[in-house]
This record gives sequence, structure tokens and C-alpha cells, in this order.
Amino acid sequence: MPSDTLEQVLTKIDQLAQHFVTDRLAKAVEIKSVSSDLTYEGRRNVGQMTAFLVGQLSGLGANVERCPLGNQPDTNPVLELPDVVLAKYPATPDPKKRTILIYGHYDVQPEGEGWTYPKEPWKLKEINGKLYGRGSTDDKGPLLAWLNALEAYQKAGVDLPVNLLFCFEGMEESGSVGFAGFAHQNQELFSKVDAACISDNYWLTPRKPCLTYGLRGINYFTISIAQKPLPGRKPVPLHSGIYGGTVHEPMTDLTILLSKLVDSKGNILVPGINGLVDDTTREEIERYKKIDFSMEEFKNTIGSEAAIYDTAPDTLMHRGRYPSITIHGISGADSSPNQTTAIYPEVTGKFSVRTVPTMEGSVVTALVVHFLKQEFNKLGSKNTCEVREFGESAPYWVGNIDDPNFAAGKAATKRVYNTDPDMTREGGSIGVTLELQKALGTNKSIMLLPVGRSDDGAHGPDEKLDRDNYIKGSKLLGAYWWYFANP
Amino acid sequence: MPSDTLEQVLTKIDQLAQHFVTDRLAKAVEIKSVSSDLTYEGRRNVGQMTAFLVGQLSGLGANVERCPLGNQPDTNPVLELPDVVLAKYPATPDPKKRTILIYGHYDVQPEGEGWTYPKEPWKLKEINGKLYGRGSTDDKGPLLAWLNALEAYQKAGVDLPVNLLFCFEGMEESGSVGFAGFAHQNQELFSKVDAACISDNYWLTPRKPCLTYGLRGINYFTISIAQKPLPGRKPVPLHSGIYGGTVHEPMTDLTILLSKLVDSKGNILVPGINGLVDDTTREEIERYKKIDFSMEEFKNTIGSEAAIYDTAPDTLMHRGRYPSITIHGISGADSSPNQTTAIYPEVTGKFSVRTVPTMEGSVVTALVVHFLKQEFNKLGSKNTCEVREFGESAPYWVGNIDDPNFAAGKAATKRVYNTDPDMTREGGSIGVTLELQKALGTNKSIMLLPVGRSDDGAHGPDEKLDRDNYIKGSKLLGAYWWYFANP
Repeated sequence: MPSDTLEQVLTKIDQLAQHFVTDRLAKAVEIKSVSSDLTYEGRRNVGQMTAFLVGQLSGLGANVERCPLGNQPDTNPVLELPDVVLAKYPATPDPKKRTILIYGHYDVQPEGEGWTYPKEPWKLKEINGKLYGRGSTDDKGPLLAWLNALEAYQKAGVDLPVNLLFCFEGMEESGSVGFAGFAHQNQELFSKVDAACISDNYWLTPRKPCLTYGLRGINYFTISIAQKPLPGRKPVPLHSGIYGGTVHEPMTDLTILLSKLVDSKGNILVPGINGLVDDTTREEIERYKKIDFSMEEFKNTIGSEAAIYDTAPDTLMHRGRYPSITIHGISGADSSPNQTTAIYPEVTGKFSVRTVPTMEGSVVTALVVHFLKQEFNKLGSKNTCEVREFGESAPYWVGNIDDPNFAAGKAATKRVYNTDPDMTREGGSIGVTLELQKALGTNKSIMLLPVGRSDDGAHGPDEKLDRDNYIKGSKLLGAYWWYFANP
Repeated sequence: MPSDTLEQVLTKIDQLAQHFVTDRLAKAVEIKSVSSDLTYEGRRNVGQMTAFLVGQLSGLGANVERCPLGNQPDTNPVLELPDVVLAKYPATPDPKKRTILIYGHYDVQPEGEGWTYPKEPWKLKEINGKLYGRGSTDDKGPLLAWLNALEAYQKAGVDLPVNLLFCFEGMEESGSVGFAGFAHQNQELFSKVDAACISDNYWLTPRKPCLTYGLRGINYFTISIAQKPLPGRKPVPLHSGIYGGTVHEPMTDLTILLSKLVDSKGNILVPGINGLVDDTTREEIERYKKIDFSMEEFKNTIGSEAAIYDTAPDTLMHRGRYPSITIHGISGADSSPNQTTAIYPEVTGKFSVRTVPTMEGSVVTALVVHFLKQEFNKLGSKNTCEVREFGESAPYWVGNIDDPNFAAGKAATKRVYNTDPDMTREGGSIGVTLELQKALGTNKSIMLLPVGRSDDGAHGPDEKLDRDNYIKGSKLLGAYWWYFANP
């Protein structure tokens, strides 16, 4: 049994557990801080959550600043973006201590449909040890767990061994509009922290804690095939009875080109892409073998027999450390289920490449564009083909699991959960991680330290956070600070 | 200069020309007989046109019958289908004369948008010899040209050399709902006619008259690829970041399969299909070479450089006498132009095969289904694949250009236009032709005898019928009767 001062903090968290649920999480869940609700009322609700956090942080003695981000572009009515809440604790940082940047977001998804526990998503309700409510796990619970930890240090009379810089955003569920600019403006402040921690993802299973050290990147593309218009003309859909067989049909060309990107088993066929992927190390393979992950649970999550791989390590590696290509859809053709008979003059396919080290985005783009143009030229079509990078791209991100930040995460997990965390990489992209990495500088460590479980149902109906995860999560975050200062 | 009695009829038509425009076509165009307008008022307008025709035919001494088709299925409010107008002339057929069945339709397209000549599509307006108005060419002008011809015979005091059975439909622009049943019920009546003529298509150019002796058929297919659900589950869209690379993606499988149907130059790749196509005869090639068809006009019509072939004969043969495959679209994926990132659990592609002699529909279906299933099995996918014939199919149709019906059409064209008509085949399917062929029996000849030109713009804004085509068309139809009786 450890006899360090951390134990007093952990014990205090147990004593304060009901207070953390009733006075903090339940109150936060009641606030409908839906950032995608583009009405005055919707934005006012988000603002209410900003105010709630400012109150909580001030109450804990932090030096709180509301950082306005200006107006949200292209909104009618004109809406101000929710403020970022930036808070220093202690109010005057102790120069002898190292500083950790903490990121969380206080906006949530809309309530959506299909709730059963309870019917009212904006009222936190505990059933069988699960705290149901919109935002319980994404991301109000984890965000407030940081505050719980801080309160516990204070009430246990234990000196906080680090300086904290809280950074709480209100637009994460709506593309983090304004956050990149904010991070850039605060680069000087951010670059002075020693490490950063984000708690906005989930365990890989409902059982085992993990630390997340990698995210795939994304490069998104469109490929448009069009009939080349005569000068001043705009081609229109043609009747396939009258014109079928006499004109180059864009849909024909497009399906041929899309079919060349990836095979049914997910193998990327664009030459050069696979050569960019880092070799797998023996150590890495061993690490994947040890991760707690059940193929039965995986199948249950996807709801189908569509798993390509039979084993957990293969599935996990293809989720996080190998690239993939997905074709998302085609616009410009007829997507109705009706019997229609047109030849469409311009169709656009869209697909994304999920990238991993060391697939630099610009190289991926060059390879994809070159390959598709080359394949198009082979068709002998008189149509035109345009391949474009489209929308927002994000580079892959991988942390160093052997650095002091991850060491603190591991020690905290071991202390609270009595197990070594699984070290995981996620398949998706989390934009905020990349923006923070840019602002901090590439030499600063960021760790993703999840509080919730894989089955929390973020974004869906019946979103929940286990009471156990909320309380142990508060301990985990407090312990992380402690081990960061006392490695 | 011919001195037969037909000349008196043709001269009479010239004398009556303004009367045919003012008292017949102009009045008909004013009636908004839009069969797709599923309101009481819309249907009442169609009924007004029924009444107009009944009045006109009765006035000409025909024995007119209104044939109710019952209620239109699935309409709210409940709507009666427009009557078919069936009229015999003379009222008591002359047993010594042969009988011709005449088909036309009296409903029209909605007015649509973009009219410039004139702004009011329901008022016939003559500008530079063109009669603008909705329905002028499709199909009120040609339908009324039959009545013009009959009136001219009467007023010229020339005995009509054939018995006529007029059959005028009011639902053609809405899928000829009810017509198949009507034709079937009247099989005994129809099977007694000697030949049939339909005037509801167009010249191949704005210059040269033609007779149409062939239509391609159509077989329509859907191919659905789905993730195989776990028992009691319904797979949902998956995040491509989290699942890309670990699951068989239906869109990947679908684009691969669709890419195997046809190449960019329109060559069908489904094994066995091309072997079903009748060989081209030397005579046929010569006939295609003689057809008046300009590739410049073709390009101008399609508005693009997408023509596969450089020559008119190649283009025409691939329009009418070779099969084609068109991919019309995909449902179940994201057809928006936005950056979305889902993997969709079930996607359906739809495509059609245009058929020609002697591609029997059932054989085409068997070949397509077999091929796609075989190709799917090669993928090694755990998804499911279902290929289905979908919607309405229609067989190809080809008439015998050497029979007495076509001989009469050729002679009439020569007489009125002083040129041999081009013999054409259309790429699309005209359901009514097939229904009539069924009712008449396969040994009876049907001819498509167009009155309007290729540039009439049926269905679009500024629909027109040249005054010259309307008047000469009336002569053409009258002469056709004459030459049918006097070969």
C-alpha cells in the first residue's frame, strides 16, 4: 500500500465522489451546449456552459480568462464563436514546477434520437452504475474529472506538484472552428509548457485502460470526370436509350478509376503508397499481441461479418498503423433508388486516404493524382478527368511512448487500475492534437489519456460514462500530475 | 405531276392550312393536358382534351368511343385515368377496304421552365415559320395531322381508301399507365387491323424525313453489396478513420464490379452479350452510309466532345443496332459534395443494358447475373452481393422495312417531300409500340412515321413544330393511307 501524499488525494476523491456527480457532472449535463445549433438560443446555451466552467475554475482559485474567437463564418444570424476558456492554476505559476497543458471541450452533440436511458438526455441519470446523459463521456465527464482532481488536491491539503494550463474549447463537435487560429495566437504561451494531455477519446474495450500515442492522418480527394463541353455550352444529362453506346460516359470512366484504388481486402493499389509505410518492428508486433481486444466485441460493434482479419493484432494494426482508402460516394449521378435512365455529364467520386508514418501528405497527393491521371489516360476517353485534394487534410501523429509524459500516464494507470495500460493508436484524426502539437512545437509530448470506455456511445443515443470511470478517471488524472512531477 | 385523286387531297390540305393551325392545333395547345399533374384540376385539364378530341372526331363523322381505364393506382386524391379515345372511320367500316390502326397521345409534358418563344407555353405562337407551344410536336401536332388528313379527304370529295381505327391515349407522358391492359382487352379488335402506324417520334435531323423501323429494348439491373449483418442487427455507417482497413467496404466491392461491365469506349465486357448481337449485313452498312446525319449536329446536340465515333454510320449503328450499358448511379453512399468520411454498410448500383436483335431479355439477365456473381466471388469479400433485374424491362423491336406498310410510308414520303426517307432505328424504347405489337400479333406491321424534326425540343422549353412539318405532315399521313391502299 503506497504511503505517498497522492494516496490522500485518491482517498479524498472517493469521499467527494457524490459531490462530483451531483454538483459538477449533473449540472453540466443539464446545459444544452450544442455547438452545432446555429441559433441565438443554441449559442446562448453554449455560453451558459462557458460561464459554468469559468465559475467552477474561479471557485477553485484559478486565474481564468475568456478568449473570444470572433464571429463564426457564414452563419445567419451572425453568431459569435464560443470563447475558449484558458485558466492558470495556481493563479501565479510556480517557476520551480513544470507546467502541463490540459485540453478538453465543453460543447456536445445534439441530443439526436433513440434515447432509452433516460428519455430525457439532458438530465443525468444513474442506472446500474452508469451515468447516462448527453455529453457525459464526450467530453464533459473527462473535462470535469480534471477539476475534480484539482479540488481533491486542495481538500486533501496536498500541494499540487505541477502548474496547470487549462484550455477548454466550445466548438470541438463543430470542427473546432477558430481553434487553429487561437492556438497559433497563443503559440508563445503554449510553447512554454512542458507537456500536454488530452482526455477526449476512449479505451479500446469496456475493460482495460489505455494510453493513446498515435492517430492516422487523412488526405481527402475528389475525382471528377466530365464530358468536355463545347465552347459556351453546359452538357446536360443525356437519355441512355438515345445516346448509350455513342458517347463516353463519365460514370463508366469514374467506376473504372475508383476500382483501381483499393481491393476488397483493403490493400491499397496506388503504386508507391505502401512503400511509404514504416516497417513494423518486432517490438511493435509484440505490443499489439498484448493489447486486450476481442474480435467478438469488434464484430458486435460493427454489427456484421465484414471484418477482414481474424485476429485482434491484425485488426488493430490495420486500424492504426497501416493506411487505408475508403470510397465515400459519388455526386452528380442519380442516387435515388428509382429506375432512371440518364447518362450524367459530370460525376465526382470522393475518397480518403488514411495516412500513417511516414506518409507525408504532399507525397501521398502526388502519388494518387499521378496514378489516377495515368490510368485515366489509358482509357482513351474524350472526357476530362480532374483529381483534387479536397476539404481538410491532417497529417498522421505519433507520440513517443517512452517519454516522461507517457511514463506518468503509465504509472498513474498502474496506481489507479492496478494494470499496465494498453498502448494504442487510433485510426481517426483528432484535429486538436495536431493544432496543439504545432503550437507546442514538435519536441513537446502530447498524450491522449482516455477516461471513458469503448461502449460509452458518444454521439449516439444513451451516451453514458460509468460512475466508476468518472471517479477512477478523476483519480487517474490527479495521479498523472503527481507522477509527472515525481517520476 | 401526278394526276391521281391524292393530288386533290394534298391541294385541299394547302387550302385548309390556316384552318388546321387556328382551329385545331392552337385550340389543342391551349388545353393544359398534363397527365403528370396529379390534382383534380390537372386531371380535369386532360379530360378537357379528351372531350376536344371526341368533338373533333365526331364532327368528322367517326364512330367515337371513350374507353375508361379505371382509377390511377397510388394517387391521393383518387384520380381516374384519362380515357382512351377509340374511333372508327367510317363509322361503319367498309369490309372491302383494309384497316389501319393509328396511335397518338393527347397528353403533354408540364410546361417546365426557360421558355422564350413565347413566355406563355400554352398559347401557340408562330415565329419564323415555327409553331411554338407545349405539345405542338409531342404529340398534339402529329395527332391532329391525322384529323387534318381525314378532313382534307372529305372536303376534297375523295373517298378514303382505307378504314381507320384511331386510338388516342392520354397517359403517354406518364408511363402509359393502363394502356397495356387496355391493349390486351382490345386484342380481338386490334388483331383484325391490317397494319398500324404511330406518329410520335422525330426525324433524325432537321432536314430529312425518315421512317423508323427499330427500337432497342432495355433490361435494368441493380447490384447491391452489403455487409452481412449479425443476427438481429442492422449494420450502420462506420467511421472510416476507425474502421478503414479492417472491414470489407461495400463501395469498394461495388466500384470493382461496376468497372467490369463496360469500357470507356462503350464496349460491353460481360461475356456472351456481344455474341447475341446479329451480324451486320453489307446491305445494312450501305443503308447506314446513306442516312443523312451530321456529326457536327450530333456534337451540338450533346453539347460536348464526348462522341466516341468520328463517323455518322458508326454513331448511328451504336445508337440503334448495337447494345450498350449505362451505369446510372449509386444509392446508399453519400452523394453530397461534402467532405464526409463514412463507410456505408449497403450500397446499390443501377445500370441498364440496351438490347438489340437477338438479345432475348432472359438470356441477357442470366449472363449479367452470372458474370457479376462470378466476379464477386473472385473478390474474396465477406460482404453479400445481390444482382436483380429491376423495374420495367422492354424487348427490342424491329419492323420489316420491305413490307407493304413501310412501302406506303416510303411512297408517301417520296410524294410529299420528293425524297426517299432515311430508314432509322431508335436507341430508346417506346413501350406503346411493344404493347400494340403484342395486341396486333407479331405478323402485323407497325411503322413509326414521324412528323416533327430532330430539333423540335419535345419535353424542353420552346417546344415547336415547324408549320411546314405540320402541313406537309398532314399530307404525308394522308398520302400514307392512299399508298397503303394503292401500292
